[in-house]
Amino acid sequence: MGSQALAIVAGTGRLPELLANAATKMGRKVVLVCFNGYQPEWRTDQPLIEGVFEKPGNLFKSLHKAGCTEIVFAGYILRPRINPLKFDMKMVSLAAKLLPKLKMGDGATLDAVKAVFEGEGLNIIGAHELLSDLLAPSGTITKAKPSEDDLNDLKRAQEITAHLGNADVGQGAVVAQGLCLGLESIQGTDAMLDFVAQTSDNYRPDDKAGQGVLLKAPKAGQDWRIDLPTIGPQTIEKAATARLSGVAVQAQSVLILDPEETVEIANKHGLFIHCFEVEG
Amino acid sequence: MGSQALAIVAGTGRLPELLANAATKMGRKVVLVCFNGYQPEWRTDQPLIEGVFEKPGNLFKSLHKAGCTEIVFAGYILRPRINPLKFDMKMVSLAAKLLPKLKMGDGATLDAVKAVFEGEGLNIIGAHELLSDLLAPSGTITKAKPSEDDLNDLKRAQEITAHLGNADVGQGAVVAQGLCLGLESIQGTDAMLDFVAQTSDNYRPDDKAGQGVLLKAPKAGQDWRIDLPTIGPQTIEKAATARLSGVAVQAQSVLILDPEETVEIANKHGLFIHCFEVEG
Repeated sequence: MGSQALAIVAGTGRLPELLANAATKMGRKVVLVCFNGYQPEWRTDQPLIEGVFEKPGNLFKSLHKAGCTEIVFAGYILRPRINPLKFDMKMVSLAAKLLPKLKMGDGATLDAVKAVFEGEGLNIIGAHELLSDLLAPSGTITKAKPSEDDLNDLKRAQEITAHLGNADVGQGAVVAQGLCLGLESIQGTDAMLDFVAQTSDNYRPDDKAGQGVLLKAPKAGQDWRIDLPTIGPQTIEKAATARLSGVAVQAQSVLILDPEETVEIANKHGLFIHCFEVEG
Repeated sequence: MGSQALAIVAGTGRLPELLANAATKMGRKVVLVCFNGYQPEWRTDQPLIEGVFEKPGNLFKSLHKAGCTEIVFAGYILRPRINPLKFDMKMVSLAAKLLPKLKMGDGATLDAVKAVFEGEGLNIIGAHELLSDLLAPSGTITKAKPSEDDLNDLKRAQEITAHLGNADVGQGAVVAQGLCLGLESIQGTDAMLDFVAQTSDNYRPDDKAGQGVLLKAPKAGQDWRIDLPTIGPQTIEKAATARLSGVAVQAQSVLILDPEETVEIANKHGLFIHCFEVEG
């Protein structure tokens, strides 16, 4: 990690702000890159470069001019509608390779985007390298602990997400009493939890057994530098509204944004947060 | 297929009624079996046996007494809360093998249930054997045809459901412009389409490209006799509300309930219904 300016490609969620604050605290100059006309509300005085998907040449010129040698991706960015009439020369040269990837899974898309930035001499670093304090520790970090039923549900969820990962889809699932109540698609974890919240309790027939576990873990083989799963206070609130027993995340592989508040909210609702180690 | 009485285990949806009508038309005596206190509204004069999960011994006695040698499963039945205090002797003998399966995927559960009925000398037949007229034909059966974009989305959906099937989850997915907008969990296709209907159009950035394909197909290795995927008028209405381009089903492997009405509704909304052949 150099002391040069750091570019933060800022999507939705709390992660970009946390990164900007952490980098600034380290004494680094921060440049924000925002696509799709997105204007972060939290920005104070960092310079902002407006990214236009059709004009990556302009973006690279601005990044080099600002002295950026490193770049970090943070938060979700909606895939754009691309207008070929607006392409700059750089995009013309990239289009044949890049555009087909945008219609594939998240992993394939991000790999392609990554290669483009690296080709420009920009070093991609992971959010977890700047925010290593926020990586999930090991063990159960709440007052509530997972029951044996919950651990069985977690095991089933791991089985399911392993297969989903092979299809390059999602990083999460909800399982209750062995039944899969939710599978993460492009809309993300919050949308999946809203869906589960609308599910009839008839799908959880035994009110004494586990009421459901949300699993979050990176896809196997996923490049952590660019799409690390995160949870935070809102995840827990939504898990509570979905009447789940708790949330399980892979230790050292998922960021917990605002960890104190996240644990506090889980304790208030009686949910567990269990950070499991992956064997082997 | 004998001429003996046919037992229909009736769950939700239109399938049990269609089966009862078809069997009656063939001159067969029909006995309905209903679990969970479910009372079909469409029933006219078929005898009804109330199934109680804890007392399969009673059920088998009733089925034998009614002269049933064949049984067909139709429609979704919620998994019950099981009370061990109510077990009859038959259930006591089955419990150790059967109960753990109820917390596994659909396929594993149904295989276990199937083995129990077959062990009692009941021959399980598939809904499609009585309703072969309703099996999806080959080709596009609507005025609208899938575009090349739609066929690409179908291909991606097939890839995803193949992986989901390996996890013994779901029989369906929605893909638009290469992005997965929905994955079928235990709540079924209608719930998934309701979820997609709530999805922002920002996830379908190109309004000239495909707006999404619902794929329905049996899981690989699935026993068709017991859990054949179905679509019908309601599926198409919900696909239209979810602003999809159309619906793709595996030819000869999915039942289309009320096929004329289903096609008519698709034509009204400009959706395609494409019945694809599986290669190899």
